[in-house]
Amino acid sequence: VVIDLSADFRIHNALLFSKAYGSYPPCPEYLDQAVYGLTEVYREQVKNGDIIANPGCYPTATLLPLAPFLEKGWIGGRIVVNALSGISGAGKKLKENLLFCERTENTGAYAAGKTHRHVTEIQQEVDLLSAPEKAEQQHDVLFTPHLVPLKRGLAITTTVELNTDLETSALLSLFEEYYRDCPFIKLLPESYPQSRSVWGSNRCDIGWHMEGNSLLLFSTIDNLVKGASGQAVQNMNVRFGIDEQAGLATEGAL
Amino acid sequence: VVIDLSADFRIHNALLFSKAYGSYPPCPEYLDQAVYGLTEVYREQVKNGDIIANPGCYPTATLLPLAPFLEKGWIGGRIVVNALSGISGAGKKLKENLLFCERTENTGAYAAGKTHRHVTEIQQEVDLLSAPEKAEQQHDVLFTPHLVPLKRGLAITTTVELNTDLETSALLSLFEEYYRDCPFIKLLPESYPQSRSVWGSNRCDIGWHMEGNSLLLFSTIDNLVKGASGQAVQNMNVRFGIDEQAGLATEGAL
Amino acid sequence: VVIDLSADFRIHNALLFSKAYGSYPPCPEYLDQAVYGLTEVYREQVKNGDIIANPGCYPTATLLPLAPFLEKGWIGGRIVVNALSGISGAGKKLKENLLFCERTENTGAYAAGKTHRHVTEIQQEVDLLSAPEKAEQQHDVLFTPHLVPLKRGLAITTTVELNTDLETSALLSLFEEYYRDCPFIKLLPESYPQSRSVWGSNRCDIGWHMEGNSLLLFSTIDNLVKGASGQAVQNMNVRFGIDEQAGLATEGAL
Amino acid sequence: VVIDLSADFRIHNALLFSKAYGSYPPCPEYLDQAVYGLTEVYREQVKNGDIIANPGCYPTATLLPLAPFLEKGWIGGRIVVNALSGISGAGKKLKENLLFCERTENTGAYAAGKTHRHVTEIQQEVDLLSAPEKAEQQHDVLFTPHLVPLKRGLAITTTVELNTDLETSALLSLFEEYYRDCPFIKLLPESYPQSRSVWGSNRCDIGWHMEGNSLLLFSTIDNLVKGASGQAVQNMNVRFGIDEQAGLATEGAL
Repeated sequence: VVIDLSADFRIHNALLFSKAYGSYPPCPEYLDQAVYGLTEVYREQVKNGDIIANPGCYPTATLLPLAPFLEKGWIGGRIVVNALSGISGAGKKLKENLLFCERTENTGAYAAGKTHRHVTEIQQEVDLLSAPEKAEQQHDVLFTPHLVPLKRGLAITTTVELNTDLETSALLSLFEEYYRDCPFIKLLPESYPQSRSVWGSNRCDIGWHMEGNSLLLFSTIDNLVKGASGQAVQNMNVRFGIDEQAGLATEGAL
Repeated sequence: VVIDLSADFRIHNALLFSKAYGSYPPCPEYLDQAVYGLTEVYREQVKNGDIIANPGCYPTATLLPLAPFLEKGWIGGRIVVNALSGISGAGKKLKENLLFCERTENTGAYAAGKTHRHVTEIQQEVDLLSAPEKAEQQHDVLFTPHLVPLKRGLAITTTVELNTDLETSALLSLFEEYYRDCPFIKLLPESYPQSRSVWGSNRCDIGWHMEGNSLLLFSTIDNLVKGASGQAVQNMNVRFGIDEQAGLATEGAL
Repeated sequence: VVIDLSADFRIHNALLFSKAYGSYPPCPEYLDQAVYGLTEVYREQVKNGDIIANPGCYPTATLLPLAPFLEKGWIGGRIVVNALSGISGAGKKLKENLLFCERTENTGAYAAGKTHRHVTEIQQEVDLLSAPEKAEQQHDVLFTPHLVPLKRGLAITTTVELNTDLETSALLSLFEEYYRDCPFIKLLPESYPQSRSVWGSNRCDIGWHMEGNSLLLFSTIDNLVKGASGQAVQNMNVRFGIDEQAGLATEGAL
Repeated sequence: VVIDLSADFRIHNALLFSKAYGSYPPCPEYLDQAVYGLTEVYREQVKNGDIIANPGCYPTATLLPLAPFLEKGWIGGRIVVNALSGISGAGKKLKENLLFCERTENTGAYAAGKTHRHVTEIQQEVDLLSAPEKAEQQHDVLFTPHLVPLKRGLAITTTVELNTDLETSALLSLFEEYYRDCPFIKLLPESYPQSRSVWGSNRCDIGWHMEGNSLLLFSTIDNLVKGASGQAVQNMNVRFGIDEQAGLATEGAL
């Protein structure tokens, strides 16, 4: 069993992978066996997968609040995703752009639209999760990441239009039902998720704001835990029938 | 001549003001004389105004990249605005939420949608600036502000749909023409505006990314300068025929 | 059994307490029963104490590297202590001085010399720990705390003169012997302790630099753990014969 | 006329330079013509110098509060210097140690004692400035620099013993007389200098605390201005008879 932290098995379509990463996937022959390891959404597949592709940090935090709505087919049109990422999201490379003096007291967008590799991954899952009977409807993902002067932390705001009238209570019910028995999802019906609340934990906090048929979704994760190795451990736990929370924190440490 | 830093004269409609601020405007009898002091956009009115309402920081940074498109009538549908603000945007109040230990290594959304008072101001100007012949088309503003651990700085990403095919060169031309002879607007056709580049200056930096008919607009200001007293000085300079740059920096200090 | 996080039982002499805190100790009749809960130094007393005064953060980080030398009587003259503290050391009070915008990108000294209450506590322990046969020798403590823009973390540099020739190896041996079987003390003979290494843990890291008979001692703790409630838990564990590490981390989380 | 920002002409003794920098000074034949450009202290020499060695940031902030006392011969014994430096003090090198994620929420000492090159420079000036009639008395400098998560800023605390009884008023008089007509020196008799007060300016703020015959000196500069190119401009102004403040700020910008 392989739980892969790289992007090698995340994109099912080798050609799309090539476009995003500039090279052909290293093991294309295994792509169709790979399971996309967004644990809460693909739990059954993860239980039985032998190649589990651990998702990227941006896709994890983007897809978790969206998944229930995509599966219901309640979203119409494009999906606008704005992400705020701590600097560790860029890794530990020796790049001038990552020096303390370049990033402190500074913020701004980068790699917007299809420029960022993670968009291919987000778009793939948006398409796959969309309700089949609405499959003719394409949801274009418009993604803009920003660097903010944090060490860890990812906060995402997603703006969509609902194609159906929804009561506030129905929205909460949808989330509660979808994420029943998910120890790492915390729903915040009354407040806005903050990155430090999930700092060091494997949790994803989800909030929302509805205005007419516009829906704003808010989600926060620790990019180094639920957005990386923490979710890998969670996948390992689920795959091998261990307690899903083993070795993982549900409370932030900051 | 009054150049007013408060919100008292920003909203032309007393009722809308009341809804946003929870109280009736203090001097409603002067509302119709008040000029909205977004200098680059309302320069002629500012030259002749006796009550100049200095805009809020979020409206300033949101409207500057949008204005040329609104006036042309090239935008269709809703306008999604995601704003990242340094902590000084919230003032110097003694609130727990503004303590160092609450804001460092932390980020997240707050006051989304119509919850934030500045939305009324943004929506008013979006409506007014929209080309008259397209006036039947309402652009709903979907606004989400976020706090990021900066002292000063405002970075805004605005996502819209164009209702017309546009060449990249036409887009640049539009901006260049609209902001000709504007010493505090810097166009960045090739890069993403960063908040520290405008730190301490009265500048607004503008960038963009077009993908199909989707357009992402990026803008940064120093919320304490172009977003507050700096623009007030600029308005004073314009109003009294002084050099527009007197007492103001065009280069960031960080 | 009381493990007291306040300063009420830290100072054995009621008069000295009054001078430092501006009021008489609330329970002077229990002062002579109180044990000073610097666990590694007073372990036997803690095991049998019924009132355990949990030390302040500055005294904890100052005294741990000094204690072995004081007990040997190897230090001559005054002790110069310079402390760098994260902002949480000042508590969660709503004071202008603790706002994000006042503390970010800012540092400086405060409450130097005998101005800071913790000096009384440090001086008491310096006097008590000094080898009895050298008791005629007074070590004046010159203390300067500084605020640095961290949430948590305390780094202390102590400069003293040795009154005896010491080999580097003897110095390491002294520390190793004194802190044998102390799971929360980490000796760093080759490097400088950094605050983030102990972040979230109950550890105190100790380093040193000897130059002639001048000795520089370096120590770091998390002021909210070893400098506060963490040491209280450690004292509870020791007092009740529980595993000393129960509920406490030995590795930093940052 | 050369105003040299490097260290090449700072150390008068070529051998001492070699020990500190690991290589012989590049132009030893000019060393005896070089003037040490600590403007306020060597103003007359700077006016007439053709090679002006611009001081390092640590020596600048250390020597300014010390100079009046050294010249009077009022200091006895060793000088303990603890310095807190922002990260830009280390330059813009691509070193892991300077990455945002390594330096945020982190502090600690480095290069203590004679390990740091600037100690040679500080020791040279301490020796030279010491009153000739007390020249037999060597003041050992014990220097410990620390990195703190700032972009710019240097705060230094110096601890010495006075060898004479001094009234508080005499101390203030000494400073006022020594720094009369020095536009970049601000004396703070009642408060502690903070790094942000001098941010972006060429100023050095000086405070002090006397306790018995122990004296604590506090000084702050912007390491990139008074600690580098700002002082070079100041030296140029003085050398060429221009207004000393030309092109330089006396007020901080933060």
